[in-house]
Amino acid sequence: MPKVIKRTAKKAGQAPGTLMHIGERKAESIRITVIDYDEQNYQEKQVTSIKECEPFKTTSTTTWINIDGLHQIDVIEEIGKIFDLHSLMLEDVLNTHQRPKAEDYQSSIFVVLKMLSYDEENDKFRSEQISLVLGSHYVITFQESVGDVFGLVRDRIKNTKWRIRKLGVDYLLYALIDCIVDHYFIVLEKMADKIESLQEKVATDPSQETLQQIHELKSEMIFFRKSVWPVRELVNSLLRSESPLIHKTTEIYLRDVYDHAVQIIDAMETYREMISGMLDVYLSSISNRMNAVMKVLTIIATIFIPLTFIAGIYGMNFEYMPELKWHGAYPAVWLVMATVATIMLVYFKKRKWL
Amino acid sequence: MPKVIKRTAKKAGQAPGTLMHIGERKAESIRITVIDYDEQNYQEKQVTSIKECEPFKTTSTTTWINIDGLHQIDVIEEIGKIFDLHSLMLEDVLNTHQRPKAEDYQSSIFVVLKMLSYDEENDKFRSEQISLVLGSHYVITFQESVGDVFGLVRDRIKNTKWRIRKLGVDYLLYALIDCIVDHYFIVLEKMADKIESLQEKVATDPSQETLQQIHELKSEMIFFRKSVWPVRELVNSLLRSESPLIHKTTEIYLRDVYDHAVQIIDAMETYREMISGMLDVYLSSISNRMNAVMKVLTIIATIFIPLTFIAGIYGMNFEYMPELKWHGAYPAVWLVMATVATIMLVYFKKRKWL
Amino acid sequence: MPKVIKRTAKKAGQAPGTLMHIGERKAESIRITVIDYDEQNYQEKQVTSIKECEPFKTTSTTTWINIDGLHQIDVIEEIGKIFDLHSLMLEDVLNTHQRPKAEDYQSSIFVVLKMLSYDEENDKFRSEQISLVLGSHYVITFQESVGDVFGLVRDRIKNTKWRIRKLGVDYLLYALIDCIVDHYFIVLEKMADKIESLQEKVATDPSQETLQQIHELKSEMIFFRKSVWPVRELVNSLLRSESPLIHKTTEIYLRDVYDHAVQIIDAMETYREMISGMLDVYLSSISNRMNAVMKVLTIIATIFIPLTFIAGIYGMNFEYMPELKWHGAYPAVWLVMATVATIMLVYFKKRKWL
Amino acid sequence: MPKVIKRTAKKAGQAPGTLMHIGERKAESIRITVIDYDEQNYQEKQVTSIKECEPFKTTSTTTWINIDGLHQIDVIEEIGKIFDLHSLMLEDVLNTHQRPKAEDYQSSIFVVLKMLSYDEENDKFRSEQISLVLGSHYVITFQESVGDVFGLVRDRIKNTKWRIRKLGVDYLLYALIDCIVDHYFIVLEKMADKIESLQEKVATDPSQETLQQIHELKSEMIFFRKSVWPVRELVNSLLRSESPLIHKTTEIYLRDVYDHAVQIIDAMETYREMISGMLDVYLSSISNRMNAVMKVLTIIATIFIPLTFIAGIYGMNFEYMPELKWHGAYPAVWLVMATVATIMLVYFKKRKWL
Amino acid sequence: MPKVIKRTAKKAGQAPGTLMHIGERKAESIRITVIDYDEQNYQEKQVTSIKECEPFKTTSTTTWINIDGLHQIDVIEEIGKIFDLHSLMLEDVLNTHQRPKAEDYQSSIFVVLKMLSYDEENDKFRSEQISLVLGSHYVITFQESVGDVFGLVRDRIKNTKWRIRKLGVDYLLYALIDCIVDHYFIVLEKMADKIESLQEKVATDPSQETLQQIHELKSEMIFFRKSVWPVRELVNSLLRSESPLIHKTTEIYLRDVYDHAVQIIDAMETYREMISGMLDVYLSSISNRMNAVMKVLTIIATIFIPLTFIAGIYGMNFEYMPELKWHGAYPAVWLVMATVATIMLVYFKKRKWL
Repeated sequence: MPKVIKRTAKKAGQAPGTLMHIGERKAESIRITVIDYDEQNYQEKQVTSIKECEPFKTTSTTTWINIDGLHQIDVIEEIGKIFDLHSLMLEDVLNTHQRPKAEDYQSSIFVVLKMLSYDEENDKFRSEQISLVLGSHYVITFQESVGDVFGLVRDRIKNTKWRIRKLGVDYLLYALIDCIVDHYFIVLEKMADKIESLQEKVATDPSQETLQQIHELKSEMIFFRKSVWPVRELVNSLLRSESPLIHKTTEIYLRDVYDHAVQIIDAMETYREMISGMLDVYLSSISNRMNAVMKVLTIIATIFIPLTFIAGIYGMNFEYMPELKWHGAYPAVWLVMATVATIMLVYFKKRKWL
Repeated sequence: MPKVIKRTAKKAGQAPGTLMHIGERKAESIRITVIDYDEQNYQEKQVTSIKECEPFKTTSTTTWINIDGLHQIDVIEEIGKIFDLHSLMLEDVLNTHQRPKAEDYQSSIFVVLKMLSYDEENDKFRSEQISLVLGSHYVITFQESVGDVFGLVRDRIKNTKWRIRKLGVDYLLYALIDCIVDHYFIVLEKMADKIESLQEKVATDPSQETLQQIHELKSEMIFFRKSVWPVRELVNSLLRSESPLIHKTTEIYLRDVYDHAVQIIDAMETYREMISGMLDVYLSSISNRMNAVMKVLTIIATIFIPLTFIAGIYGMNFEYMPELKWHGAYPAVWLVMATVATIMLVYFKKRKWL
Repeated sequence: MPKVIKRTAKKAGQAPGTLMHIGERKAESIRITVIDYDEQNYQEKQVTSIKECEPFKTTSTTTWINIDGLHQIDVIEEIGKIFDLHSLMLEDVLNTHQRPKAEDYQSSIFVVLKMLSYDEENDKFRSEQISLVLGSHYVITFQESVGDVFGLVRDRIKNTKWRIRKLGVDYLLYALIDCIVDHYFIVLEKMADKIESLQEKVATDPSQETLQQIHELKSEMIFFRKSVWPVRELVNSLLRSESPLIHKTTEIYLRDVYDHAVQIIDAMETYREMISGMLDVYLSSISNRMNAVMKVLTIIATIFIPLTFIAGIYGMNFEYMPELKWHGAYPAVWLVMATVATIMLVYFKKRKWL
Repeated sequence: MPKVIKRTAKKAGQAPGTLMHIGERKAESIRITVIDYDEQNYQEKQVTSIKECEPFKTTSTTTWINIDGLHQIDVIEEIGKIFDLHSLMLEDVLNTHQRPKAEDYQSSIFVVLKMLSYDEENDKFRSEQISLVLGSHYVITFQESVGDVFGLVRDRIKNTKWRIRKLGVDYLLYALIDCIVDHYFIVLEKMADKIESLQEKVATDPSQETLQQIHELKSEMIFFRKSVWPVRELVNSLLRSESPLIHKTTEIYLRDVYDHAVQIIDAMETYREMISGMLDVYLSSISNRMNAVMKVLTIIATIFIPLTFIAGIYGMNFEYMPELKWHGAYPAVWLVMATVATIMLVYFKKRKWL
Repeated sequence: MPKVIKRTAKKAGQAPGTLMHIGERKAESIRITVIDYDEQNYQEKQVTSIKECEPFKTTSTTTWINIDGLHQIDVIEEIGKIFDLHSLMLEDVLNTHQRPKAEDYQSSIFVVLKMLSYDEENDKFRSEQISLVLGSHYVITFQESVGDVFGLVRDRIKNTKWRIRKLGVDYLLYALIDCIVDHYFIVLEKMADKIESLQEKVATDPSQETLQQIHELKSEMIFFRKSVWPVRELVNSLLRSESPLIHKTTEIYLRDVYDHAVQIIDAMETYREMISGMLDVYLSSISNRMNAVMKVLTIIATIFIPLTFIAGIYGMNFEYMPELKWHGAYPAVWLVMATVATIMLVYFKKRKWL
């Protein structure tokens, strides 16, 4: 996470609106895809120049322009010019370390989110920033790289039976946000799996490595929370927004997203408590184990120290030690030793130390 | 709890309002029961087809339609059509991992709650989601399975002497919610029992298992809180609602439910503090016990180590050790040893280590 | 405390307003006392039937009807009928596990409080629920048992010189609440005494029992807070109330009670911090003591283990050990041992372990 | 601190406005000082009877009446009568355990504050309650004893060059509050000194006594916070007050005091964190020290126990032990022992235990 | 940090608006620089007397007057007179321990901030207070010493291509604040570096010194937070301000600064959690290490104590010990010892103590 800050720091002192790509370059070249539809028609094409998108700006059909890759600043600038986007908005698009937020720029609404997914192969969470711009007849989405979570949304757009074909751009915006938020559940699920398997490990076989895993999980949770927590406020600000771009009919759907966001935050809080509970269990397991080791030492030492002392006594070389000459002395010493050991064992048993 | 998220995750990316049953299938087949009454009349019947409920939609009598089982999506969909229920509402009914909430859909009010009960046989808490829809002349309740906590409400409806026969559907809604909230007290009671018995165990006989029980109790408490905490806000939103479906006269009863919810939340907070207090006592008991063990080792070792050293001295085989030849040496050594041991014991006594 | 919930649980599912006494039966029989006064007149009598109170309902004099004992439900019901009290209000009166609160029932204001006192004999805090109903010309108080903290209020009513004789029923209500809140200071004082004596014990002579006492005190504090915390909100809601039953002139007095409530809550918070500070001191005292014990073992063992080893060497029975034959060997060994011990002691001294 | 509550408890049940001095009697006799001034004139005198102050009540000059000592209730009562002060206000003046607050009594504004100073001689913080009453032409201040922090304010009043001579009574009130708040900085400074010296001690030479000093400091901080925290709210309520007694022009000065109060609270929070950080360092120092002691024992014991065992073996008296007869056996045993010890030391070195 | 308070304390009791430089004297002499520009013209000069600035007060061009050094109170006073600055504002300028804040003085807006930078050479954070005064045609900035973070802003002003030349004084104010806030990212970056390197050290090689470094970092974080936290509120109050000095067009830029401030605060919170997580890891590392040491002692002692006892037995000098005479006794004893040791090792292995 510290890296987040490092890269942003490079921009310190620059004029606001100075376009500069802050983040890893994740894509080879920028790819622009246009999906244009209304209730009857549907068209999807990949364009090579952003100029080709200009006509869609004014048609009454719903247009979704998706841009994959952020490193070609001139392309981003051109989009900005064609669609009249504020330079601060473009700056935010390019800075991939934004806090999720929604902003109302009168003629358009700007939304920044983190698209989270789980990379099964490398057993890692992947985070990608996605910016959404809602205009009167179009939604523009900026992604860091090719590949996203919108497969099912595209399927629904292709099929006339779905509601999405009838409702306008604000519904499209909603559908995309909803899809992103729904994928948070998948990430949560993976996290839940990890917690579950760790919980077992902590109880049965805790090691220094387990501790590290708990802390890793905690870090992931902190990162996840940072991405998800502001989404509630984001959706809420869309709900309260009085922008004409968002219709009354879409509000009920946004409220649904809001509920999901709250549900995720709730679950996260529960997981946090579970993780910190795990830490307690870990520490207490470790100390229990140590105590068990110490107890064995204590008992063995406590029993043998007096016995060894007795043996030491009769190992002394004094000339005048009458016991040494007695015939039954040796077995008697054994008897004494056995008695001492027995008394101690009984005492330990009684105090439940065994 | 992690399972909650797993199942919800399956739906990621689906269109909003896509009906899909999320949760365990708890009932064999859907059972629909209709109770219809006004001040004079009372009728209860089990219907096989939801169509039979349609007439009750418009009659001025109060109708309570109860559906047990959520897995037959077509039946739920049909109910939705007949009673004009929003598809998002039906989606919430089917997703049994909802956060408790109340939503105003103009023509109807939608309430989701967790019905908690204690399963005496298996010594476990059972949680079932219940959705309530308040229309102008009817209340529809959706339950996951047959069997609920509404026995006493049904008895009151059957009997003309009770106020419930005179007051309308909103009072029925209140009565059902009140009944659910009242049952939270029973769950709290069981929790209190568990806490009490654990508290004794922790003080007298703490073991690794006790720790696990404390953490289990804590988990149950977290789960319980998740179910109950939002109820306060839920009732409050009904109170503040300006929906014509809720009459002024019902408000005072809702305020009573609100007070109960607050009381439960208060008690829960107290229990939480008691549980974390128990953890402290547990840890301190364990460490006290360990200390007692260590003290015995310390004292025995501290006394015998010097004595064994003395014995070791006179076990040396030097040819010229004058003491070995002295006649009174052996008893003298015993004397010295006894003196050393006594001094130590007195010192320990003085420092209150014995 | 868990018991609080147990008893309330019995009522689950009952119709709202079903009268049922929840709590211990503390009084033998219900006792009704009427005090009626205005600036000139004063009258106090004990009535046997609640019917006798009916005339006071409409007279313009100030009437205080006090009921001791809550177990005769029919008497409570009759009072309800005579004074037009809402059934939910009566339900709250009978349920002695209410959270302190004030409710405005238009024609009357209902206040529930905990009356706390300290039982010197049994060294225990006593808590009794008291319900106050403010009507246009009367105040009704319901107590669980005979005996209360209102002695000084009664004295002031008897004496014409006091302001209470001139001001109306709302002032009487204020005076009673003020008196209850003032007694919280006495309970706080006792708590302060206990804290002070425990603080000394923890520092000088901590034992497992001390820990238990700290936790007991903590529990009492939690219980106390539960009783007192809502009082601030209660008084505040009376202050903000727009009920005509509370006159402008009384407000300044209520603000005074509010200040006292805040002061008590402040003190409670301070005490809580002191108690948790005590826990820290306790734990650190215990571990300091353990450390002291361990240090003695360590030092003695560390010194004697090498010495015993040296003795062991010359206790070996090899035929060819030249040292054994040397004349000065024995004293030389003693010298070596003394040197080793001295070096160790000096080392320990230097590192401040002695 | 517990004593605070003890004394207040005495008043429980008394009529509101009953005048009773609660607190220590700090002054011999009440001393009344009057300072009267406007832009041109200045007069300061000590009066023996409060009656002499009556004329100042109506003159248009600014009058500051200072009363030192609170134990003569009749004098306080007379002041109340002359200046029409509410009996609840006088009650608050006499109860020296008030929480800082400002109250608007229409014709006057009442402010209670704690005047804190540092007693260099006894190395203790001193706290004195001061009540300020702002009327239309006068400010009355009640102090527990002779001696205050207002020296510089008096100097400024005497000198015509200062703004205070031109601005009215509300500016005087401000100047007094400002002066008290400014002195909090001096107390903070002393606290900072103590923290600094303790921090050094904790790191270099922690002892049980250090712990006690940390806790003492923590208590002082709690007490200090209790005195200062409400001041922010107090000044804020003066700022928001719509009383005609406070002029627009004074507001900017009050905002300045507000800023100072916030700054002090900020610093206090920082100090609190520093103190609790010190506790952590203390505990970890103690345990580090214990660990160092234990490590020495462990190493010495671990090395010598096997060696002593070897010596023990050849101390056995079996008749047929071939090694005993070998010529090189003794030096061989020494070699074996040296090897074992060396291996162990190397192992410890490698694991960084040495 | 404690020093902050010490110096402020000196002023206690002084009249408000008394000018007194509180802080270190960081500059030799006051240096005044004037930058004056509009869309076409640009002029920068250093003036020796503040009088030379007077003409810029009324010209419609944008003027930035920068003052380096605060110790010459007469110069500050003169500036105050020329630009009609309130004496409280000047007092705040001179007191270099201000909490960041923005205040609206009608004719001007006053902003105080901390300018943070990282001194690469001494590996230390440097903090300097900067006060900004926004008038109708000018911005005055007061710095403690020569040298600031505004290099890039000056460059932008010099170049006609930048927006800053077209927009007015409020944009200049914004640009300066933005620049300061942007530099917080650099400080955060350094902090992130330190955290990262410490995290590695804590996991691999924790020492008492590491603990000190963690606490140092924590202190720096507390100090940093104190400087940055109020900035959010500061910018927010500028945003909400209805002052005509701040134009609508600048608001969107201020919102951008606000977002940055929130982002920094977010990152800080994450770092705080990371630091306290490090403390946990540190403590657990230390105790793990101690446990490893103890385990070795335990195992060696537990194995050798019984063996030494056996050796001790046959070291006794009884005349009648039949075993001593047996031919195979010596190897038999070795066998017994090996068996005992093996059993113990197997037991330890099974319990995973090895």
